[in-house]
Amino acid sequence: MVQSEKKFLKALAGEVQEIPPIWLMRQAGRYLPEYRATRAEAGSFLDLCYSPDHAVEVTLQPLRRYDFDAAILFSDILVIPQALGQGLSFVQGEGPQLPPIRSGAGLAALSTDNLHQTLAPVYETVSRLSEQIPPTTALIGFAGAPWTVATYMVEGRGSKDFAHTRRWAYGDPQGFQELIDLVTGATILYLKRQIAAGAEVIQLFETWAGVLDETGFKRWCIDPMVKITAALKRDYPDLPVIGFPRAAGVRALDYVKATGVQGLGLDSGVPLAWARDYLQSEVCVQGNLDPMLLVSGGRSMRTEIQRILNHLNGGPFIFNLGHGITPETPPEHVAELVKIIRRL
Amino acid sequence: MVQSEKKFLKALAGEVQEIPPIWLMRQAGRYLPEYRATRAEAGSFLDLCYSPDHAVEVTLQPLRRYDFDAAILFSDILVIPQALGQGLSFVQGEGPQLPPIRSGAGLAALSTDNLHQTLAPVYETVSRLSEQIPPTTALIGFAGAPWTVATYMVEGRGSKDFAHTRRWAYGDPQGFQELIDLVTGATILYLKRQIAAGAEVIQLFETWAGVLDETGFKRWCIDPMVKITAALKRDYPDLPVIGFPRAAGVRALDYVKATGVQGLGLDSGVPLAWARDYLQSEVCVQGNLDPMLLVSGGRSMRTEIQRILNHLNGGPFIFNLGHGITPETPPEHVAELVKIIRRL
Repeated sequence: MVQSEKKFLKALAGEVQEIPPIWLMRQAGRYLPEYRATRAEAGSFLDLCYSPDHAVEVTLQPLRRYDFDAAILFSDILVIPQALGQGLSFVQGEGPQLPPIRSGAGLAALSTDNLHQTLAPVYETVSRLSEQIPPTTALIGFAGAPWTVATYMVEGRGSKDFAHTRRWAYGDPQGFQELIDLVTGATILYLKRQIAAGAEVIQLFETWAGVLDETGFKRWCIDPMVKITAALKRDYPDLPVIGFPRAAGVRALDYVKATGVQGLGLDSGVPLAWARDYLQSEVCVQGNLDPMLLVSGGRSMRTEIQRILNHLNGGPFIFNLGHGITPETPPEHVAELVKIIRRL
Repeated sequence: MVQSEKKFLKALAGEVQEIPPIWLMRQAGRYLPEYRATRAEAGSFLDLCYSPDHAVEVTLQPLRRYDFDAAILFSDILVIPQALGQGLSFVQGEGPQLPPIRSGAGLAALSTDNLHQTLAPVYETVSRLSEQIPPTTALIGFAGAPWTVATYMVEGRGSKDFAHTRRWAYGDPQGFQELIDLVTGATILYLKRQIAAGAEVIQLFETWAGVLDETGFKRWCIDPMVKITAALKRDYPDLPVIGFPRAAGVRALDYVKATGVQGLGLDSGVPLAWARDYLQSEVCVQGNLDPMLLVSGGRSMRTEIQRILNHLNGGPFIFNLGHGITPETPPEHVAELVKIIRRL
């Protein structure tokens, strides 16, 4: 009943719509002056994530401007390592920092004992959002996929080549499996609570899928995701899940078939004709404008938006970027994008 | 006649061989103690690139240990910006640094006037190598592909997201085209001299293909590569070219068809069955063991080597890694890899 009003949920149910739903990854973010103001008021980035008052506010901000078809919980994928007991801080200009875990010994200090206690403010944020968002807007909960979260836990920060993580995974696959299993279990607990609090859709961000070889992708990306989708389906059989295995290339097809996700995020590198011919018959696709085109705007942006619509809007489709919106994006470019999609 | 002795050239000519040829990207490198000794003697990394005595020596070192089927000129993809007049230095532990060029104004200072003068030592290295390598070893010349070289010229260093380059390319495609054309022209001049000096094969490294969207990939990766292969074919119709569009995903197929390369480098993320079914009918494929498996060694490495052979050695195939060998690789793992490939 409620679902029938929500374009976003219709698309994930396989419905083809003349005007597709639209939202943008990281839509609550630094490109908006009102976000920067709330962020300054909240204190640190983590303070913002853990303060329901502020997190609700920044989640709602882009809806007020652009009336997106979906709101996504404002949080960070690294709250899971933190809730497992690994220290986490965000250093200005340098991104996240954690004391790296590079062997089984480091796992002993982690547990799910305080998981829900640490994450309670996140659940509170979801709960308040589910009451406050407009009735036509869908509420997305999310988590990082286990491999991607594990890379930060092992590297202790962002990385270019994820050498420590891959070396552990390839050199001691049994040991590394314990880390992946721990994160997978915590992620399932976390997402179930988000759903219980009101999330209508779950998106899993596998940002670093592209750095694994085929065997690693199967073991560390697909297998944990199969466990997560199966666990959610047991308790919430009708809840749609969107997977976003960034830079998975050809392997996106295996990923969709193995995990049974209802939605698939496409990074900007996925060729549109291939996505239409091979993916869209299996799943609702979501994407994939390059965020840099939204920064530059103009004719290149308009041409590419149209090309995406021409290829993908004949099947189940959600318009989005191929990666998160960047801080230097002019908000008026977002307004123009939304107008084009909605033919205003 | 000479070609018939060289397994590497046979593979590129489409011949299927019971034992495939093998070489490793960055095989002359820091994992070898003799390389580190020569490097210390030469001075800076750039001194090593521009000293034929030292560059020949490090190129030959891995051949002495492993009798690889190909030698690759020791040099760096960033000698092109340097030869065009852009400053270049390598800062210990930080990689390359160049004064960034971010608009058409920055191009005015660059030209090909001193190109061959700057690169003369590289040609001398190729010439000496062609006399000194074993008769069964093929000599590979190389360059960075224009998009990849341009990213360093614009960012001024390595980057995670190449935001400046993509913003320029998307926001001012005409202006950015001038940079790409300049690099493309210089690359053609450079490669022709390498061939004249004795290079038997050319490999183009498109390390950062994966960061472009479909339209950008066509314009900035495929189109310049089409120009390069056409220009080389005019003067050297029988000279094989290997393209390595890393992380191109599905688009590797378009790349092969448009450029007409004889060889295609596969990164470690390319699924083997797909490479066999879609790529190997068009081109000799080369790859794609994850370098981290060569670091960890053991059963995971052996299993993956066998899986690659099982999938790809029924067609034209060159064994290689999916990316450059890393400094922490134990040389004895390389010895084991070569033994497995050669069934010794």
